[in-house]
Amino acid sequence: MGENQLRSRTTLRWRDGVPTSGTDNLATEEPLEIRLGGQRFTLTMRTPGHDEELAAGFLFGEGFINSRIELGEVRRVPDPRGEPEPNAIDVVLAVAADGLRERLKRNFVVSASCGVCGKTSIDAIRRRIEPPRRGAAVGAQILLALAARMRAAQEVFAATGGLHAAALFDLDGKLCAIREDVGRHNAVDKLVGWALMNELIPLGRSVMMVSGRLSFEIVQKAAAAGVPILAAISAPSSLAVELAEEAGTTLIGFLGDATFNVYAHPERVLA
Amino acid sequence: MGENQLRSRTTLRWRDGVPTSGTDNLATEEPLEIRLGGQRFTLTMRTPGHDEELAAGFLFGEGFINSRIELGEVRRVPDPRGEPEPNAIDVVLAVAADGLRERLKRNFVVSASCGVCGKTSIDAIRRRIEPPRRGAAVGAQILLALAARMRAAQEVFAATGGLHAAALFDLDGKLCAIREDVGRHNAVDKLVGWALMNELIPLGRSVMMVSGRLSFEIVQKAAAAGVPILAAISAPSSLAVELAEEAGTTLIGFLGDATFNVYAHPERVLA
Repeated sequence: MGENQLRSRTTLRWRDGVPTSGTDNLATEEPLEIRLGGQRFTLTMRTPGHDEELAAGFLFGEGFINSRIELGEVRRVPDPRGEPEPNAIDVVLAVAADGLRERLKRNFVVSASCGVCGKTSIDAIRRRIEPPRRGAAVGAQILLALAARMRAAQEVFAATGGLHAAALFDLDGKLCAIREDVGRHNAVDKLVGWALMNELIPLGRSVMMVSGRLSFEIVQKAAAAGVPILAAISAPSSLAVELAEEAGTTLIGFLGDATFNVYAHPERVLA
Repeated sequence: MGENQLRSRTTLRWRDGVPTSGTDNLATEEPLEIRLGGQRFTLTMRTPGHDEELAAGFLFGEGFINSRIELGEVRRVPDPRGEPEPNAIDVVLAVAADGLRERLKRNFVVSASCGVCGKTSIDAIRRRIEPPRRGAAVGAQILLALAARMRAAQEVFAATGGLHAAALFDLDGKLCAIREDVGRHNAVDKLVGWALMNELIPLGRSVMMVSGRLSFEIVQKAAAAGVPILAAISAPSSLAVELAEEAGTTLIGFLGDATFNVYAHPERVLA
């Protein structure tokens, strides 16, 4: 955890009707500009740290790259004095220009044809999904140990209460990686980017776990990376469950230390 | 609360190592396509209900409209059989074409100049901020009653645990409106849209409260609507506090039933 993930602020704490001045550690939120070959591509509000992974995971999730090789080179952008700019990153993709055009077009077609009804958007997105391996399964007792392991590993959350986390475990419940961010989708992008940069995709033998709730977007990112089992501390949305059913992803919600619910593909959970 | 905000699903509940089949109510998530004069403008994942308010609040927050009159006409889009399409809405703005072009351009300039460093983006956004009225203030005891009132009013959350909420209170702590959504920014857009449609903007004598955390984006939306006091159940980010300081917004975090923290402009909180 870098120091730049936390920022110390003076705060007034009201207790028993009396304000007392104190110091609070806040989760850092700053914009990150992602450029493609020097051209501004997107701007996201994120917690600094693991920016290369964030860019890699985002580009993978959006269908622009499929592998570590296609990510090409990730560069820090220099500021006017030649120092690395902390909030901008430039990716020089190793994808042939016509191939990239094709992917941009396909991506555009996906977003133009999706929407309006959930069914259509699920159909459009299904193409981008890596079918999870059949053999992957996890014991219920192993699942019940994950929430405590994620809490123990969530350093910045413990200090601020202000960060989402996404973690990858193997099927024996061993923590492989954890990433934190003010944005849940960023935490997942960083984790998928980490896997991509370490050539671990498809993540066919893993459990991904997120703090908070499970939306359509999170299931989509996990499914694109081939994750067979996705779990969350809190509730899934209706569309998250529908997409998980169609994508073949095992979806677990309200994962606590003693209980959990399975919303889709329970066949991968073993007693 | 409409029935379409909840969807019933079969789930497997694991308790004491044994799975039992049950039924769970999930928060509905569906895409909403917002069109401008028949042209596709944006697509957002949201919980159905209050779609007109969502469109109005979003367009206000992005700087496309400034008043109820400029919102013009909001229409349901017909599906091929002539029935109203549940997930698409068309807004025919009452803004002169050159005025709208100017706003689109200004908006583009804002997003082109912001980013990279937080300071620049704050400067760019400050232009869109309604300075809060000087006189607005709220008693600490009134603030401490708000969390319980929001919980009591959060019907869908109680049923699903899966929705964010945004609520408006007057300075005496009376609940004026509450909106729920799978996306926190959508809940705020719906609330601001409700205020816009009722010609209550600027919201100079109100407290806005959100479930969960406070990001830059939420402070920006509240400040654009002229909200003087913004509170949240959980932590603010560093940039949320910086923007609140510059915008003149009183920012309250970790608002519980007995305690809270003030991160910016404490002069509006009275003992």
